Amino acid sequence: MPSSKFITIEGIEGAGKSTAVKFIHDYLQSKGKSVVVTREPGGTPVAEEIRQLVLNPDAKEIIDPKAELLLMFAGRAQHVARVILPELSAGKWVLCDRFVDATYAYQCGGRGLDAKWVKMLEELVVGSLRPDLTILLDLDPEVGLARSRRRGPQDRFEKEKVAFFERVRQVYLERADHEKQRFRVIDAAQPLGAVQENLKRVLESL
Amino acid sequence: MPSSKFITIEGIEGAGKSTAVKFIHDYLQSKGKSVVVTREPGGTPVAEEIRQLVLNPDAKEIIDPKAELLLMFAGRAQHVARVILPELSAGKWVLCDRFVDATYAYQCGGRGLDAKWVKMLEELVVGSLRPDLTILLDLDPEVGLARSRRRGPQDRFEKEKVAFFERVRQVYLERADHEKQRFRVIDAAQPLGAVQENLKRVLESL
Repeated sequence: MPSSKFITIEGIEGAGKSTAVKFIHDYLQSKGKSVVVTREPGGTPVAEEIRQLVLNPDAKEIIDPKAELLLMFAGRAQHVARVILPELSAGKWVLCDRFVDATYAYQCGGRGLDAKWVKMLEELVVGSLRPDLTILLDLDPEVGLARSRRRGPQDRFEKEKVAFFERVRQVYLERADHEKQRFRVIDAAQPLGAVQENLKRVLESL
Repeated sequence: MPSSKFITIEGIEGAGKSTAVKFIHDYLQSKGKSVVVTREPGGTPVAEEIRQLVLNPDAKEIIDPKAELLLMFAGRAQHVARVILPELSAGKWVLCDRFVDATYAYQCGGRGLDAKWVKMLEELVVGSLRPDLTILLDLDPEVGLARSRRRGPQDRFEKEKVAFFERVRQVYLERADHEKQRFRVIDAAQPLGAVQENLKRVLESL
């Protein structure tokens, strides 16, 4: 894979991931790159069915945190095998809205599961694949949740309380601090223009 | 849990698990036991949705073996947390059509995944819970598949070839041989009356 890059975007609800993904896609395309945009949970037909199961705010029963963790990795196994690896092998740039860091943040930080299980599942499902770049859009959960609530109906995660997202944010920031080479943290509280200037600078450094 | 017991029934397609489950349920009930009958994959509303995903013969794409493994354990996490453990704690007998042994047989034997991953997932999801008794209905796959094909439309597993089920059977027999204390193997090629006599003898020994 000489020219392909794997870029992931992370952040809590309302941090502006979707807008950032569109901006990055257009920017890379304008530089002549062939870019595949995808997301997790989801990214393949079966993984999107798993997404519906796991995000459904009207789930027929309480979903056990371990079941949630395993559903996330089941979808990821499908996504890695059928989309991410083949596209990277074909020389494409892959731009993914959330990846393994989100599982550490939500299922360990948010739900309180031991990170050793995520590490083990990462080894099973992702092997040695790591993003070349992970952009963390960092935002105060109070601000993020207020934004995402204005957007419409909430999924099963968005219904969580602020304290849940404080823990999610904390794990994101710890991971970014621990892997400075891979992560770029952008302050998502800035006006859109400033965020996009930051994104452009990060992408130019690639 | 003074009087509760956890019994699992295992075997390939067409071995007669459903008939055996009904027989065991009626037998135990006639002895005054309060019995909960359940199954895997499935056993709770969300786990049954996962079952549909994983057994669907018209899946929208090839399901990666690791995704299949993780879906099995996602459903199991839900089932153990919401049905099996609470019912055993309440003093009920739990009679389950397939459990962890089936994952070793199908996903390792059948699909060729390394058993170390199943062991690890078993630790995460099942902890120290083990069946008190596992009844393996052993049958030549040629015979089993012929029986199950007469029964109607086939699921994603039943569409596999005989060689797949030979490997599944092999792992079942190895596990039974390795855990003689827990397993009872019954020859499912016998006439129904003889199978039920065997079942009765096994249950009386409990």
